[in-house]
Amino acid sequence: MRGMREMRETLEIGPLPEGFVGELTDLLGERFSQSSSVLEIHGRDESYFEMMPPQAVVFPQSTKEVQGIVRACARFVVPLVPFGAGSSLEGHVLPIHGGISLDLTGMNKILAVRPEDLDVTLQAGVTRLQLEKALAEHGLFFPVDPGADATLGGMVATGASGTTTVRYGTMRENVLCLEVVLANGEVIRTGSRAKKSSSGYDLTRLMIGSEGTLAVITEVTLRLRGIPEGISAAVCAFPDLKSAVRTAVEVIQWGIPVARVELLDEVQIDAVNRHSNLSHTVLPTLFFEFHGSPRGVEEHARSAAEIADGNGGQEFRWATEAGERHTLWQARHEVYFADLALRPGARVMSTDVCVPISRLTECITETKAEVSRASFPIPLVGHVGDGNFHLLMVIDPEFPEELEEAKALNRSLVARALRMGGTCSGEHGIGIGKKRWMAQEHGGALETMRAIKKALDPQGILNPGKVLPREGMGQASHSQGRDAP
Amino acid sequence: MRGMREMRETLEIGPLPEGFVGELTDLLGERFSQSSSVLEIHGRDESYFEMMPPQAVVFPQSTKEVQGIVRACARFVVPLVPFGAGSSLEGHVLPIHGGISLDLTGMNKILAVRPEDLDVTLQAGVTRLQLEKALAEHGLFFPVDPGADATLGGMVATGASGTTTVRYGTMRENVLCLEVVLANGEVIRTGSRAKKSSSGYDLTRLMIGSEGTLAVITEVTLRLRGIPEGISAAVCAFPDLKSAVRTAVEVIQWGIPVARVELLDEVQIDAVNRHSNLSHTVLPTLFFEFHGSPRGVEEHARSAAEIADGNGGQEFRWATEAGERHTLWQARHEVYFADLALRPGARVMSTDVCVPISRLTECITETKAEVSRASFPIPLVGHVGDGNFHLLMVIDPEFPEELEEAKALNRSLVARALRMGGTCSGEHGIGIGKKRWMAQEHGGALETMRAIKKALDPQGILNPGKVLPREGMGQASHSQGRDAP
Repeated sequence: MRGMREMRETLEIGPLPEGFVGELTDLLGERFSQSSSVLEIHGRDESYFEMMPPQAVVFPQSTKEVQGIVRACARFVVPLVPFGAGSSLEGHVLPIHGGISLDLTGMNKILAVRPEDLDVTLQAGVTRLQLEKALAEHGLFFPVDPGADATLGGMVATGASGTTTVRYGTMRENVLCLEVVLANGEVIRTGSRAKKSSSGYDLTRLMIGSEGTLAVITEVTLRLRGIPEGISAAVCAFPDLKSAVRTAVEVIQWGIPVARVELLDEVQIDAVNRHSNLSHTVLPTLFFEFHGSPRGVEEHARSAAEIADGNGGQEFRWATEAGERHTLWQARHEVYFADLALRPGARVMSTDVCVPISRLTECITETKAEVSRASFPIPLVGHVGDGNFHLLMVIDPEFPEELEEAKALNRSLVARALRMGGTCSGEHGIGIGKKRWMAQEHGGALETMRAIKKALDPQGILNPGKVLPREGMGQASHSQGRDAP
Repeated sequence: MRGMREMRETLEIGPLPEGFVGELTDLLGERFSQSSSVLEIHGRDESYFEMMPPQAVVFPQSTKEVQGIVRACARFVVPLVPFGAGSSLEGHVLPIHGGISLDLTGMNKILAVRPEDLDVTLQAGVTRLQLEKALAEHGLFFPVDPGADATLGGMVATGASGTTTVRYGTMRENVLCLEVVLANGEVIRTGSRAKKSSSGYDLTRLMIGSEGTLAVITEVTLRLRGIPEGISAAVCAFPDLKSAVRTAVEVIQWGIPVARVELLDEVQIDAVNRHSNLSHTVLPTLFFEFHGSPRGVEEHARSAAEIADGNGGQEFRWATEAGERHTLWQARHEVYFADLALRPGARVMSTDVCVPISRLTECITETKAEVSRASFPIPLVGHVGDGNFHLLMVIDPEFPEELEEAKALNRSLVARALRMGGTCSGEHGIGIGKKRWMAQEHGGALETMRAIKKALDPQGILNPGKVLPREGMGQASHSQGRDAP
């Protein structure tokens, strides 16, 4: 529990007020829990931070119950941390100021699928795969795919994106409107189901990426797409990283409407070859997917093949039939488990910078040179069409010095990305893991964010200590502080 | 000047403080103006509101000068209204609390075109056509087209969109980052040039559509696209409105990546036929444009033709050659002047609702039934792929009763759109013209907008009286008030 104490921002956290516990027990019965196993499950996410249990967990089943919970938190000034699938990567759900965890997974109803409007309204606890299944029968899909089976509420809260963002955008471009509970317990709707609007401030986008610090998201309305008639997939290896990245960049610049374009470096290819008994040439490799009409996707694959060829790409393999497409992409799908298998008992710590695409080659090349000296394996996977890539640092938690080395590499990488006009987080969010860069990345805009936080949550009860570093904490002092990494 | 007095929210507006005038004269010399002709030019936009001159106009040439101006306004508590091309449609630029107009047209430099990143950075006073010209030599274009030759700063401020939004999105999806001057004179940058980010609150999107009430936009970085290799255009008339709208809706639902799909009703077709000596069948007509590869756009046009055919569409005429495309689309381009020509000396007052696409047919049908009894011509033009349409009410300013009738029709239309889950403004913004519907459309969310306004502009010097109705002003009282319409 040493690490836990270290991460707490408030050193002394008193017990929950009796009146507060009584009120929530009256409201929720057994859905207010202080059992240690429940607390522990809600004290971690997929980040490298140590477990830090909340003081209680509540399981609301309706917006009205969320409202009652938030009102009690406001009255007793108890911190509240929204919790979905627990798949966040930067400690978003850790209660570093104590308080309660608000588990939204019981609010998992899909309220309305509207094929004629290409939209869906659902409760925040619905997960991505649950939604995918429900939409398939309508011939529809929701395009944002962060990999994990996250809740949609969590995906809104972190501004998630993923492999298909190059074509379909992030959550920012795919959420129509929200229902949220404010810090004072009021329920509001942001926006409408109209496809566009110039009516008032864009509260929807303000909530997207706010990580539960401005309101609790209870209901989400998403834009949908028709499942494309034609899909083609392609794989191509390149003599070096530069040629692979240049190919991806040129595909974007030529306006080929690629649906996915993923880079796996040679370290990552080697790992998946071993794990899944595949026989990819051990070279930097691009994985493409095209969506459109059957003729269109053939044409797009052919255009991409020409560009790859011009950049020294080796055999450009492509397929349109579902089984063959899956075989081509298998390596990409198994990245995470292949990396874990590199070292039994290891964990993966992922970086997440994103830079303007003209700087991507340079950023990756410099980074690769630096990490080649690391004392653990570091495969690289990139959503290269967006300028976003991850180092998947495979570290052994038994050796704290590896975590320190990984943190140092991440610091160096973020500094490089910011120097190149990029961002410390392309898609994972800030949580506690990236707070120390907020001042450097945003400059004076950080004060504007703080002003908004104060205006919407004057008591600071909504996921306190996330996104925004404490005032007066510049980067220098933070690097000594407990915000990590 | 009676109308002017009526619209002023602050009944007594004192003269500008002497110290303030002295300070701005020192800073700007002749670029601080109180000449009556300059004041009058800055006292109107393209709305139906009467002229209301500001007390002075300033013409900054740099962000530093804007900063000096805002600081002076903050110190002397003088209202400040950003002004671009003056093409806004809801009275956004009228100084209803008095104060100065900040004319940004002198800040019209394109600072950097980056073809490899598909982005451009420019000063807020650059206009749309100026940008189009500068980009053409790079084979690039910026897709948001509101029709008017607005400044890009103004387009950000109103959250503009237009005919190509169905394919490329609104300003929200096409702005990467901004430089803005806050109410206290601080200059901040929102976001970065990285294509995506999950780092902190989305201040960029908060500024988009804020109409100069949260900050002064000084610099804009936009996403660009390559000019498509293939473009095809098509026109098709339908026996009735329902069939036309259904065709547009089905084209969207089928996932055909249409770049534009515009509806002109039979009244509008008749007007352009007369004005431009065209011979379109006088029926509701769809105008399509497709962007892609040469083969792709032919395929898309053919798919759209099939859908049109299934809905009773008459001869589906299409073309790929530039001259022929222009001829096909000429009617759409001349809508505005054709409507003005219907009545010499008339003005056009445009409505702007947007509804979920499933309600569009119903909304248009009910609306057409109502306006058929109007005492002036009312052609209809719709960005039907987005669920957004405009009634172009051709009224004679000599007859105040026509303006009253037009306002009543607009009130009825907005009420209908809100009942159908839509918005009072698809793309024109709120200004003063639509404030009265903010409470009804946004409910409790309006208080959240007010909290943000207070946090970012505590003295209320930035374009006061726009977007947000005064507190305590519900819809009922406003309908009696001077907010109009």
